[in-house]
Amino acid sequence: MALIVQKYGGSSLESAERIRRVAERIVETKKQGNDVVVVCSAMGDTTDELLDLAEQVNPVPPAREMDMLLTAGERISNALVAMAIESLGAEAQSFTGSQAGVLTTERHGNARIVGVTPGRVQEALDGGKICLVAGFQGVNRETRDVTTLGRGGSDATAVALAAALQADVCEIYSDVDGVYTADPRIVKNARKLDKISFEEMLEMAAVGAKVLMLRSVEYARAFNVPLRVRSSYSSDIGTLVSGSMEDIPVEEAVLTGVAHDRSEAKITVLGIPDTPGEAAKVFRAIADAEINLDMVLQNVSKLDNNRTDITFTCPREDGRRAVQMLKSMKEAAEWQDVLYDDQIGKVSLVGAGMKSHPGVTADFCEALRDAGVNIELISTSEIRISVLVRESELDKAVVALHDRFQLGGEEEVTVYAGTGR
Amino acid sequence: MALIVQKYGGSSLESAERIRRVAERIVETKKQGNDVVVVCSAMGDTTDELLDLAEQVNPVPPAREMDMLLTAGERISNALVAMAIESLGAEAQSFTGSQAGVLTTERHGNARIVGVTPGRVQEALDGGKICLVAGFQGVNRETRDVTTLGRGGSDATAVALAAALQADVCEIYSDVDGVYTADPRIVKNARKLDKISFEEMLEMAAVGAKVLMLRSVEYARAFNVPLRVRSSYSSDIGTLVSGSMEDIPVEEAVLTGVAHDRSEAKITVLGIPDTPGEAAKVFRAIADAEINLDMVLQNVSKLDNNRTDITFTCPREDGRRAVQMLKSMKEAAEWQDVLYDDQIGKVSLVGAGMKSHPGVTADFCEALRDAGVNIELISTSEIRISVLVRESELDKAVVALHDRFQLGGEEEVTVYAGTGR
Repeated sequence: MALIVQKYGGSSLESAERIRRVAERIVETKKQGNDVVVVCSAMGDTTDELLDLAEQVNPVPPAREMDMLLTAGERISNALVAMAIESLGAEAQSFTGSQAGVLTTERHGNARIVGVTPGRVQEALDGGKICLVAGFQGVNRETRDVTTLGRGGSDATAVALAAALQADVCEIYSDVDGVYTADPRIVKNARKLDKISFEEMLEMAAVGAKVLMLRSVEYARAFNVPLRVRSSYSSDIGTLVSGSMEDIPVEEAVLTGVAHDRSEAKITVLGIPDTPGEAAKVFRAIADAEINLDMVLQNVSKLDNNRTDITFTCPREDGRRAVQMLKSMKEAAEWQDVLYDDQIGKVSLVGAGMKSHPGVTADFCEALRDAGVNIELISTSEIRISVLVRESELDKAVVALHDRFQLGGEEEVTVYAGTGR
Repeated sequence: MALIVQKYGGSSLESAERIRRVAERIVETKKQGNDVVVVCSAMGDTTDELLDLAEQVNPVPPAREMDMLLTAGERISNALVAMAIESLGAEAQSFTGSQAGVLTTERHGNARIVGVTPGRVQEALDGGKICLVAGFQGVNRETRDVTTLGRGGSDATAVALAAALQADVCEIYSDVDGVYTADPRIVKNARKLDKISFEEMLEMAAVGAKVLMLRSVEYARAFNVPLRVRSSYSSDIGTLVSGSMEDIPVEEAVLTGVAHDRSEAKITVLGIPDTPGEAAKVFRAIADAEINLDMVLQNVSKLDNNRTDITFTCPREDGRRAVQMLKSMKEAAEWQDVLYDDQIGKVSLVGAGMKSHPGVTADFCEALRDAGVNIELISTSEIRISVLVRESELDKAVVALHDRFQLGGEEEVTVYAGTGR
């Protein structure tokens, strides 16, 4: 008998009919002899509707109240799934994040899980019940206030519960049936992976694969919780995320997939005095504004004027704000100019095999050259190569790399979509 | 400085605009130098929508999960009102029933408040904050499960909090601006009462005045919490419910008002053997089916056959069920017949003055006679006379009694409506 944690995304729960379908799957898992804990996101558009109401009563709503408001969404879906399970003759019990012992930091709207004490959940499991836990929420240990976990919060709840309960596997259900070698909407013969190591999944998630949020993969890796990415609408077994890259024999290590990301903007600060501390000014300003940097590149100093350029990427939604701030510093810092470009895209190749196969970078660049795609910026890790290209050429770049590294399968894929929270 | 508890019904909160209006009133009360605790019902139709969803996933939803589901409604309105208050520059903090220390019995869907330990609310009040407490919900002390309080639950929350916090007054806001001498939709010159004693309000609520639920008035009376019934849409001071009837000097004691009720059905069991224990069979069967009796009448035994008839009223929604049950017992109990009639209405006159004014019953019956209304059943208490009449003659009876006892004012009233939960 295994203990299985299942997480269902909002689109899998958007109507009474879908909730009943999810309940059937849960009861089926239970009937196969497993203990089952289920984490639910809010139904379909509930969260957006609540955000909209909040906006109408207060354009800058206080974070604590926002959390109280938004957590209602998961309580609703949670209770409804429990009811649907009981209508199928199985026993269910629902828990709020607080009741399930999900303890978090104090930061409203974007709290982190600091621990899970699922005593009541364990008790209900021991009593033969299917347990439902409201995702995306917890309780701040100090003030006993309700908190929410930010983007990817329900996945994080599921993984943290799985870790605390020592579950055998944490299944993440959405409308995506696994991790693919590339986005099947762009690459027709993209192949679903049967298995991927935590490290590779981390790199894929970090560079734009939306199927899993980075934080959940990090948490799963830290506590060694195997994840399985599956679709709510099929019986396909999905993709297993588990194990270390180190465990993959060198001979088997291959390239995992191509990820892409069109959510970033590129900012370049030109003519920064090339003396110690001048570059730090740029990054301190960005950090103080709570903007996340992704790629960073500093050119070697030009000999003629002893000045350097710094280029970095950040979320497109923060781009304008970053530029305004940097422009306001330009005079005092004696920079020559600040440039902004949000017509860019990032394409990445990820795979443990990269370490043992020299020449991957050369093949990568040649593939793009042959496709007529110009590279604007390169950044690499041990198992990843990422480049910035024109956004208009992004799809072409993804297809070219996927082909060059022979990642495709024989069949064409038709379904693919985004992810919940 | 006074401590004021305010309760707002669902229709007062049905849109973002109404929530902002409510927030203005709350902040105004605070600015006048009062401490303010606010209890909110769920927004407009939220509860019905949730009930509808539950029905779709499970026609017989488990009560515990139903409570988890429904309490989301009050959490939402609560958080939104807190946000609206903060947008007006005041400080607010919202609490769930559980956080506010509302402890209840275990009975899901219809729990009773057994105690309130509002430590966190008091702390926030001491810190100068406006406190918002989600109505209609509490937590079962033994299992720490979320419970709901059934009909009138938000009023009960407000009154119980007011009692625990020793508030100066508990204001009940809805779309009704006070307690009237009769329903202004029926009696054009119905007069709003400035003040009414707890006992009189209890009788009025018991016989159909919908402005306050019986349980809230009972709670308020037990803990001596003055209630004020007011409208969310006007600055009218409403009706104060407080004090004992005993405190009203006999010379001032008058008749309070005329209430009516068209929610009951009449059942008559004919030809019951007139021996000890035979009548009890009827009432035991009704009690076991959890049907509430209202009026009960047993005729004197007819001399010729030593049999008696019993007539009683019960909620119309339970009427058919009661009749079916009684008919199934008919043979064994040797009753002659079971009759059912749901075309009836009840009209009642309430007032402390009844005690000191002989002849009220005679006037009452004559008023109905003069209006051509036939009386089918009479029942009285110390300060109330109620009769059953044909439902089609109910309005006529209300007007006739209101006129005869000169309860009306000089002006005509135009607004009146139902109440929330």
